[in-house]
Amino acid sequence: MHAQQMISTHPHVRGNTNDVLIRCIEACFDCEQSCIACADACLGEDMVQELTQCIRLNLDCADTCRAAGSMATRRTGSNEVALRTMLEACGLACRICGDECERHAQQHQHCAICAQTCRQCEQLCQEAAQSKTGSQQQH
Amino acid sequence: MHAQQMISTHPHVRGNTNDVLIRCIEACFDCEQSCIACADACLGEDMVQELTQCIRLNLDCADTCRAAGSMATRRTGSNEVALRTMLEACGLACRICGDECERHAQQHQHCAICAQTCRQCEQLCQEAAQSKTGSQQQH
Amino acid sequence: MHAQQMISTHPHVRGNTNDVLIRCIEACFDCEQSCIACADACLGEDMVQELTQCIRLNLDCADTCRAAGSMATRRTGSNEVALRTMLEACGLACRICGDECERHAQQHQHCAICAQTCRQCEQLCQEAAQSKTGSQQQH
Amino acid sequence: MHAQQMISTHPHVRGNTNDVLIRCIEACFDCEQSCIACADACLGEDMVQELTQCIRLNLDCADTCRAAGSMATRRTGSNEVALRTMLEACGLACRICGDECERHAQQHQHCAICAQTCRQCEQLCQEAAQSKTGSQQQH
Repeated sequence: MHAQQMISTHPHVRGNTNDVLIRCIEACFDCEQSCIACADACLGEDMVQELTQCIRLNLDCADTCRAAGSMATRRTGSNEVALRTMLEACGLACRICGDECERHAQQHQHCAICAQTCRQCEQLCQEAAQSKTGSQQQH
Repeated sequence: MHAQQMISTHPHVRGNTNDVLIRCIEACFDCEQSCIACADACLGEDMVQELTQCIRLNLDCADTCRAAGSMATRRTGSNEVALRTMLEACGLACRICGDECERHAQQHQHCAICAQTCRQCEQLCQEAAQSKTGSQQQH
Repeated sequence: MHAQQMISTHPHVRGNTNDVLIRCIEACFDCEQSCIACADACLGEDMVQELTQCIRLNLDCADTCRAAGSMATRRTGSNEVALRTMLEACGLACRICGDECERHAQQHQHCAICAQTCRQCEQLCQEAAQSKTGSQQQH
Repeated sequence: MHAQQMISTHPHVRGNTNDVLIRCIEACFDCEQSCIACADACLGEDMVQELTQCIRLNLDCADTCRAAGSMATRRTGSNEVALRTMLEACGLACRICGDECERHAQQHQHCAICAQTCRQCEQLCQEAAQSKTGSQQQH
């Protein structure tokens, strides 16, 4: 992904990037795609009936990741409190989804991989929420 | 919108609907559209330079509304804590966006209307977050 | 929804609205919500194994509706060819999803309602694609 | 991103992946993020008044990329015609957005980078649309 390049060339950032936030953005888009994929892979399993909770959590997690990744991308103006709250909501959805995927990790490799991407996104959302999420230079 | 009809026919709901949650879902999709429209209308104003913070908040608000509206729509299984947290994050983004739109309401009618849809969505997100958001009948 | 009010107050539109496009926007957001709800209701059915194709088409349809509804909302500048192509892609996804939902309409009321919202959205996407989708007054 | 790992472990794919489709999925999520970032960076420029068309195309492109990337991720069941049409619509939106970004590439580095991600996504959408986009093994 080009998140680092895109954000470091923003007129209010000018190279002075919040690196944990950038890694968090990439993790959000990665986790969104993994969760859409895991929901769909679970849907294709013969035992889909036993994976409906996993599918539901995957889709919820994908929705929060998309919102968090998009909000965190914006550096014009400021929306720090809302962004921090969104990052926390996303970290929570990732944790719950990762826990559920973990339960099916032995049986389904897509759940094992998705659990990992959820863990990484959870971790980075928490770190980013505690970092200085505002743009470095206000106009 | 058909949110009421769709959710009342869900196999785990069977008519036993959470009406404030349904009104919240409709408010989320309405507010998402209003915020996308307001961001674009602000972008078309001659004084766009003075509306950049409003545009940014509009786009952030649209993202949270979409995530909250989609999550709140799902009634299979359960994700109550994550949903409640997402509804709170959305209510907050709506409040901040509504406050900013309010500042331009005298000059721009799109901001005045958008401020109203943000207020309504904020209110319903708060009420829904305090309601029983889980599906009524677990399998 | 407030699509009519929001778009009629856009600085480049100023009341001179494309009404079929506005009804199309509302249909897209309505259909997105219905399809997310139908996917989730199908997931909650005991016979979910037989509804996996319906769930997949629902989720695909929701994605196209969201993209079409968002693009059609924007009236600043111009992106007519891309918008028309997106409306056609959305109409097609709605038709395919509506056909599948129709097959389950006798057994599942959520599929019957979703088939209707898909039909309406398909129809309006086609009409809107043939209408003048550009903003009426270019800067 | 983990698109390759996620899709190769899907029960209907089982390692028999369409590699151009996977690269297309990654390009769609990358281009979505770049376009959200470029819209926001343009919004932060002093000359924002001259970049409103670029912002509009960026947001439209981000919407189509998200829809195409999500649809292309699903491998359960089949929706080949709709997927191919969506990939074509996305390729078109990317081409139009890339052309506009190109015009500002000398002045704004974010536009130069975004033009590249649009080009890559356009190319991969076209290639993927011509590839076998259906899941390899139908149930």
